[in-house]
Amino acid sequence: MVQKNGGVVVKYQMKALIKERKMQGFSLKEVEIPRELGPNDVLVKVLKASICGTDVHIFSWDEWSQRRIKPPQVVGHEFFGKVADIGSNVSSVKVGDVVTAETHIPCGKCLQCRTGRMHICKNLKILGVDIDGVFAEYVRVPEVVLWKLDPSIPEDFASVMEPFGNAVHTCAPLDMRGMRVLITGAGPIGAFSVGLSKLFGASLVIVTELNETRKNLAKRMGADIVLDPRKDDVLSSVSRLTEEDGADILLEMSGNESALIQGLSCLTNGGIVSILGVYPSSVTMDINSLLTFKGITLYAITGRKMFETWRTASSLLKHNRIDITPVITHVFSFEKWQEAMQTMMSGHSGKIILNLE
Amino acid sequence: MVQKNGGVVVKYQMKALIKERKMQGFSLKEVEIPRELGPNDVLVKVLKASICGTDVHIFSWDEWSQRRIKPPQVVGHEFFGKVADIGSNVSSVKVGDVVTAETHIPCGKCLQCRTGRMHICKNLKILGVDIDGVFAEYVRVPEVVLWKLDPSIPEDFASVMEPFGNAVHTCAPLDMRGMRVLITGAGPIGAFSVGLSKLFGASLVIVTELNETRKNLAKRMGADIVLDPRKDDVLSSVSRLTEEDGADILLEMSGNESALIQGLSCLTNGGIVSILGVYPSSVTMDINSLLTFKGITLYAITGRKMFETWRTASSLLKHNRIDITPVITHVFSFEKWQEAMQTMMSGHSGKIILNLE
Amino acid sequence: MVQKNGGVVVKYQMKALIKERKMQGFSLKEVEIPRELGPNDVLVKVLKASICGTDVHIFSWDEWSQRRIKPPQVVGHEFFGKVADIGSNVSSVKVGDVVTAETHIPCGKCLQCRTGRMHICKNLKILGVDIDGVFAEYVRVPEVVLWKLDPSIPEDFASVMEPFGNAVHTCAPLDMRGMRVLITGAGPIGAFSVGLSKLFGASLVIVTELNETRKNLAKRMGADIVLDPRKDDVLSSVSRLTEEDGADILLEMSGNESALIQGLSCLTNGGIVSILGVYPSSVTMDINSLLTFKGITLYAITGRKMFETWRTASSLLKHNRIDITPVITHVFSFEKWQEAMQTMMSGHSGKIILNLE
Amino acid sequence: MVQKNGGVVVKYQMKALIKERKMQGFSLKEVEIPRELGPNDVLVKVLKASICGTDVHIFSWDEWSQRRIKPPQVVGHEFFGKVADIGSNVSSVKVGDVVTAETHIPCGKCLQCRTGRMHICKNLKILGVDIDGVFAEYVRVPEVVLWKLDPSIPEDFASVMEPFGNAVHTCAPLDMRGMRVLITGAGPIGAFSVGLSKLFGASLVIVTELNETRKNLAKRMGADIVLDPRKDDVLSSVSRLTEEDGADILLEMSGNESALIQGLSCLTNGGIVSILGVYPSSVTMDINSLLTFKGITLYAITGRKMFETWRTASSLLKHNRIDITPVITHVFSFEKWQEAMQTMMSGHSGKIILNLE
Repeated sequence: MVQKNGGVVVKYQMKALIKERKMQGFSLKEVEIPRELGPNDVLVKVLKASICGTDVHIFSWDEWSQRRIKPPQVVGHEFFGKVADIGSNVSSVKVGDVVTAETHIPCGKCLQCRTGRMHICKNLKILGVDIDGVFAEYVRVPEVVLWKLDPSIPEDFASVMEPFGNAVHTCAPLDMRGMRVLITGAGPIGAFSVGLSKLFGASLVIVTELNETRKNLAKRMGADIVLDPRKDDVLSSVSRLTEEDGADILLEMSGNESALIQGLSCLTNGGIVSILGVYPSSVTMDINSLLTFKGITLYAITGRKMFETWRTASSLLKHNRIDITPVITHVFSFEKWQEAMQTMMSGHSGKIILNLE
Repeated sequence: MVQKNGGVVVKYQMKALIKERKMQGFSLKEVEIPRELGPNDVLVKVLKASICGTDVHIFSWDEWSQRRIKPPQVVGHEFFGKVADIGSNVSSVKVGDVVTAETHIPCGKCLQCRTGRMHICKNLKILGVDIDGVFAEYVRVPEVVLWKLDPSIPEDFASVMEPFGNAVHTCAPLDMRGMRVLITGAGPIGAFSVGLSKLFGASLVIVTELNETRKNLAKRMGADIVLDPRKDDVLSSVSRLTEEDGADILLEMSGNESALIQGLSCLTNGGIVSILGVYPSSVTMDINSLLTFKGITLYAITGRKMFETWRTASSLLKHNRIDITPVITHVFSFEKWQEAMQTMMSGHSGKIILNLE
Repeated sequence: MVQKNGGVVVKYQMKALIKERKMQGFSLKEVEIPRELGPNDVLVKVLKASICGTDVHIFSWDEWSQRRIKPPQVVGHEFFGKVADIGSNVSSVKVGDVVTAETHIPCGKCLQCRTGRMHICKNLKILGVDIDGVFAEYVRVPEVVLWKLDPSIPEDFASVMEPFGNAVHTCAPLDMRGMRVLITGAGPIGAFSVGLSKLFGASLVIVTELNETRKNLAKRMGADIVLDPRKDDVLSSVSRLTEEDGADILLEMSGNESALIQGLSCLTNGGIVSILGVYPSSVTMDINSLLTFKGITLYAITGRKMFETWRTASSLLKHNRIDITPVITHVFSFEKWQEAMQTMMSGHSGKIILNLE
Repeated sequence: MVQKNGGVVVKYQMKALIKERKMQGFSLKEVEIPRELGPNDVLVKVLKASICGTDVHIFSWDEWSQRRIKPPQVVGHEFFGKVADIGSNVSSVKVGDVVTAETHIPCGKCLQCRTGRMHICKNLKILGVDIDGVFAEYVRVPEVVLWKLDPSIPEDFASVMEPFGNAVHTCAPLDMRGMRVLITGAGPIGAFSVGLSKLFGASLVIVTELNETRKNLAKRMGADIVLDPRKDDVLSSVSRLTEEDGADILLEMSGNESALIQGLSCLTNGGIVSILGVYPSSVTMDINSLLTFKGITLYAITGRKMFETWRTASSLLKHNRIDITPVITHVFSFEKWQEAMQTMMSGHSGKIILNLE
């Protein structure tokens, strides 16, 4: 047992949710706390963590996971917690600080890292994917990814700042003021984006979504209209709602090829699209008519800017400019992780939080 | 009398508020309707007009007016109305259309005009300043400055779209999302800007203002904090409200030198300032410490972009994204123009509308 | 016969190259001069015109032409000439002025037109495609598309300002300073882009091209390296030439799917691509790995900005900042149009000019 | 004596140019090598250093120096050298690497540092001003400011990359393509900017300068016209050279109030100005006519972006895109520092290099 200056007790063993074998499933096990810290490492006591679609992929042991994950591996990457110990060279946080962290761990040395774009570092490692993650009582992360939290940000919000940051970053290159925004897909990040689009001055926010739970999330986050592509004629509805212009901006949040194509079809000339969705396979599209002849600008989005995105997200949450409560649909204790994963996979949820306190 | 296809009746004489002589004051007179239209001219029946500070300058016959105005001249430039007649070559509006108009009349031929910047045309004429204005039953304007109004925009809002557009244009180069905005001066355009800053995602809006009426406008438009430079230590208040950083963005709306200097002093490193205020004389400032060593970007703002600004303003008003009711404090009938001017000059008002219907 | 104030003689008949029937080929015929001018029309005496790939499509009567072209139709759209007559309302040019013209004819009324983006007008008509073109002694165009030429710009350069403008516009959204630029395809616009990329501060310009004539154009316009995708390993060559980073910027000028995919594969994280190429059919691509995970920004480019692009192009040519002589490989008299078309279709040419003087 | 793995020998004593006392002058003395390295420190053997105007201020012991400098202090900040030793936590450079360094030492923790703007860190320290500098055989700097040099960059160029970077950074926010650029002041950074403006596609570069040596620098770096404000009517000359428009862009490099005012007067509507000059006292200007009514954008510039600027500068020099030889007018051995300082103060020089090898 180690007693640190901030009074936080560091144990030798901890509970952790682990991808143990090259097959479907996770195991909740006692493992060693990663107490050995390099000079720039920080040990964080995890307080709350939330489940991402990526965790579901790893749980399901899909093709992508089989290529990328090397069991045994602690999973999870969305969280907030309290600093429990710091390496000899750490100076920006101290024991006891409440923090969250960027999950993209940059090398700090490549051209991208040295020119303000660590989020697209050429040697990126991902927390809970390439190194041990946060579905555990403690996690060891390098100082560079930590973000100190303003104490006024509610704990549940703090635990989902990483996916909320995805939404902030997707909106970042877009000037939405007075614009008519189409959002294809209202999973948690899509739903966050609905709220953000309104907050950022969009005059009209139209959402397409199939899933009833998610339609409801979109509405509760402020969508003006929610269309169901199976029932509604999306193209003509968008046209009608936009004085026959089409949407000015598309946020593609679904990772679904036909949603992307339909969304692009709905854009007016000079429209702008941010793509955050990840597609299960290659996409076929008529670049001439969907992009070129309309003079479209396309931003392909990944991660969050370090730390412009975190700064914006924190500032908005701290000053109560957006209420993301509707997106957080469930909170489970860590022990009930199986129930949490099942709920996640049912499709009837927004963000699901695991409580580790 | 002329009967046009849309059924609007055009008379020969009209009432107009005129700068008649080179001295203080206006006269309400019967003058000829400007019915002679060039091929690109449009005659508009004015329905409502609003009073600008510029009208007060012309009324008072200050130095600037003495240099610029050539009496007799119909004054006023903020308005909306209905198209009464069109020139032979006009095709974008028809008799009966409800319109407002940009008051900066561009030449259409200079480099600026041909490269998307008509608002800073090198041969600009200003409605109600260089040519007869809108405090009259009818006004003749070139087709190029007309903006068709969405019928869902309330009439009072329609009549102040020009100054509202100033506020939209002042905000346009600024990304306010998550930013802490300081606005120096809460006259009508400052007050519009308060509402717009919140609408555009600012996390915190601080206003400095001396006048009690205007302080109240700022609060009603959503200011988080209103400081009085005579009573409050603005620099330290802003510092305290911004985690000792300073403001990220300054909107200088006062035209007051000390407000500008104080506002710039409140900016954090890398801050951005938009100046709309017009100063009574030259300004003295320490460029090194106020701008250079902090890496400040400064936008000097005039007019409204044709018609990006109008498009944004219309879209926001049409979709009820902002309620500018608090800024419109008085409505007078045209006949009560003297009372309107007195109220304007008392300082105890926001926008004042003249009803010409 | 009409004698105008500038002394230019307007005849009744003129020679014109016409798409006469719904089949392969053009005919050189005597047709009536389009002397009837609307108030905003301008009649231009064509001095030199140049041949575009679009003209070849129309000549060949391919699928696209069959859908779009309604014979009989005068073809051609790249040119410069002298104003021969003006409509009653025209004020920006006078008889005798030397002009070229934008070939995208905007409606002037749609949202795009009114917000500074006439080049992506929703009701665009194209000269020589939707209305009679410039392979004729005279052409009638609306005043709005005319661009007065600085007399110091050489005539051959003046006649290719439209495709040169495509290259300028493709580069416009890209900051090339110190960047490593990959250009896929060195047809005339690709070759112009090579010269422009160097002029705009690119540190390294790599070109991929199969055709020997075009490889040579690229080299003469300043390409640092020209790769042949059939012989060279493009991906590893680009990697080696860029310190294993990849290119910072891609200009896709080929309209070839595999060039696009290869070009995108060569981009480093955070890279930017401008696509001007038009593809013969839909394109299939792995959006995740080619765009999203690398955080790519994609500009789909069409036309030229009116008239920002023309202003930039004119300013560069007037001040001798770029010599585009190498790209102009042939000049034929108008009568030798058949030889010109054959040379064009041989693939062994850059820009080909028809001399109508 | 210490023998390191790269074979570089580290001695105990070194020669250094020191501000020893609170009065005019420097002393060349033997002092201790700063061999004690913190975990993130790097010891660099200085090979060449160049003299900045700041060094002259410190030498002269002017007002600014008296406030800022705490003798004894090693002066100088522009240099390149070879890594001699590294702290325990340093990983991005190794002994023997050839490096230069940013002279603005950021805290790494403030809002600016964490959002990609270390150059305007709120707790900035400056090399050779706040901590011991580079006019010495060795200098100790934190790892974060080091920039590895491409070996193909000539040594003299390497030693002036810091002021060259000032010029690159001043140009960075400006799109100069086809623009008419006015540069007020052709000291070394102004002269670099002349070359960069041409390299970045300016169509015309006009310079104002009084000093004959500097006029010559401007011409040799590619200025199209050099005006002398004492002899030439700058306003009308610029007007004539720009088709009566005025300049599109102003780079204010002189730190002279009247040059700033004159430069701003020369700008056309919508013009853009970057100010790098530092003024001896407050500046008085008519903001309305110089900035606001013309819709000017003003960038106040300090330092260099870390490390976007260094990347651009390196890439341009590595690929021979600019020859800065004319700006480097003198090279002295370190022992001849007095002669170097005298030459610097004579005004008859560009950059002066001290050779420490």
